Amino acid sequence: MVVAVDAMGGDNAPEVEVEGAVAAARRWDVPIVLVGDQGRLEAILARYDTAGLDVTVRHASEVVGMHDSPSDAVRKKKGSSIRVAFEMLQRGEVQAVVSAGNSGATMAVGMFVLKRIPGIDRPAIATILPNKKSQTVVLDSGANVDCKPFHLAQFATMGAVYAKFMFGKERPRVGVLSNGEEECKGNELSRGAHGLLKQSRLNYIGFVEGRDIFSGDVDVVVCDGFVGNVVLKVSEGLSEAVSDMLRQEIGRRFFAKLGYLLARPAFRAFRKKVDYAEYGGAPLLGIQGTGMICHGGSNARAIMNAIHMARESVSQRINERLVAQLGTEVCDGDAGAAGKGSC
Amino acid sequence: MVVAVDAMGGDNAPEVEVEGAVAAARRWDVPIVLVGDQGRLEAILARYDTAGLDVTVRHASEVVGMHDSPSDAVRKKKGSSIRVAFEMLQRGEVQAVVSAGNSGATMAVGMFVLKRIPGIDRPAIATILPNKKSQTVVLDSGANVDCKPFHLAQFATMGAVYAKFMFGKERPRVGVLSNGEEECKGNELSRGAHGLLKQSRLNYIGFVEGRDIFSGDVDVVVCDGFVGNVVLKVSEGLSEAVSDMLRQEIGRRFFAKLGYLLARPAFRAFRKKVDYAEYGGAPLLGIQGTGMICHGGSNARAIMNAIHMARESVSQRINERLVAQLGTEVCDGDAGAAGKGSC
Repeated sequence: MVVAVDAMGGDNAPEVEVEGAVAAARRWDVPIVLVGDQGRLEAILARYDTAGLDVTVRHASEVVGMHDSPSDAVRKKKGSSIRVAFEMLQRGEVQAVVSAGNSGATMAVGMFVLKRIPGIDRPAIATILPNKKSQTVVLDSGANVDCKPFHLAQFATMGAVYAKFMFGKERPRVGVLSNGEEECKGNELSRGAHGLLKQSRLNYIGFVEGRDIFSGDVDVVVCDGFVGNVVLKVSEGLSEAVSDMLRQEIGRRFFAKLGYLLARPAFRAFRKKVDYAEYGGAPLLGIQGTGMICHGGSNARAIMNAIHMARESVSQRINERLVAQLGTEVCDGDAGAAGKGSC
Repeated sequence: MVVAVDAMGGDNAPEVEVEGAVAAARRWDVPIVLVGDQGRLEAILARYDTAGLDVTVRHASEVVGMHDSPSDAVRKKKGSSIRVAFEMLQRGEVQAVVSAGNSGATMAVGMFVLKRIPGIDRPAIATILPNKKSQTVVLDSGANVDCKPFHLAQFATMGAVYAKFMFGKERPRVGVLSNGEEECKGNELSRGAHGLLKQSRLNYIGFVEGRDIFSGDVDVVVCDGFVGNVVLKVSEGLSEAVSDMLRQEIGRRFFAKLGYLLARPAFRAFRKKVDYAEYGGAPLLGIQGTGMICHGGSNARAIMNAIHMARESVSQRINERLVAQLGTEVCDGDAGAAGKGSC
């Protein structure tokens, strides 16, 4: 099992990609192909001791930038590192792709090269957020800005399969994100998805609120990509502001500084729990292959952990299980749109 | 200037309402009318030393519950405490209403009794969130689940007036909440509002992301009530989960516990900054009168601070200023819907 890393995506590329790949290869003995500018990648790779590690470079002449639109990435940059990586996956030379590049473009290129899983109209990016007890899968947190209810129902199926096989949750509890738990709440989209999911065979628990994402009382939360992005960015922004404000208050007081030093191991353990770098990446679900999308600002540890997660996804056969599940749980787009979907 | 407190709304009513009212009357010498079950309120009030304080009771025979729909609250509960409170405001017996009850119902009753400000199609609930530098006004965080772009443009005007006169921000920076800052991002609603606001006379800075709410780089953030509710609830849920997880990690370690004791004043100062009880309530903007909506789980301090904020809103003449601003900044519903709005 080989992982291709798009080494040119991300704000800190290609340095952190190379460092993360070397670390993953050393820690988990996983063969890795770094895809991108051969000269630059080999120069960076030469700084590390890679004796005994299976880390190679595959040249790609172009890079998809953060401002390239998904359609431009597909049509105009046929030699991009992300395209080359997915083509290697399509030919069976690697079994998973990891990228910290433009997520909309990664999704579009992945969909174009690998095609969708039958029964899925739109792939989704699933973010793993820590909660009080374990973790919550939130999807879509990516590119599907305007969705129909049957899209959310499909996201629910994908999220449930992921939570079951990656996190060992036997009957993952699925909720539709809404502005209140009562049946009378919701907007057109969430009420539509609620209607479909009530009839599905998933362990659907109804509407959930933003606060439930962190309570540990729901395993999979579905929403459109606009709302999912807001959830993610609010979480990030608040975590950051909270640490900043706490640091300021501690910095103002001598005894508090002393206290902080004593409490530091607890802060570290806590940060490890909530740090996105620990999860590494967000799985791109619904394409015929394993893709892992990392935060643009990823550090080497995030890349390393994303490679690990990609490998776990492959060994847990997430895609095969999705195909099997979708065979029994039909959420057909056209039928759903016409109000006849079976879930 | 007199404030009416709906003493029967909220999860901890009427105890916290009475306690908060007494505290506010003592601290700011503000006359208060507690509205609700006369017997119960007088019995609770008797527990406090109210000598020299102007706290009275007005009887109301009914209560709007958390599960009553807004329309039922308006049509079926004509003797409810929130209805009686708004009617007192309408007759000029009080100058502001504070309630921790069902927020959708409070908005509906307020709108029914007091009517909307001309130029506003839908009142909005504005939540004040702390950021790294000061505070951000987010609206609508309430009941307007499905909105049109011109509603968001009207929210922007109201939020800007509020930020200017309540927080002294001369040219409040206004942003539309979206899933990315680039022009190509957004959903149908946010792109529509972006188009309208670009042509307005507000200090409009474009799309902002969820993380910007906490950065201090934007003063007013507009979104529909569905998304606004998600923002609020995610913030609450994450803050709570973060404190819980940190407490767990500290509890596991002897030296960390000691450190925490030393750092406690810093934690207290920090909590004061982020605690919603410090802001007390969320102003209900767009009705012809001052209404303040508190969190259902409000404690007495939150009620006390909401009374203070209500009083400030009245003394800053927020409603008069809104009327004046709307005279120059026309965001007409019908024109907006037809794409001809002037902002």
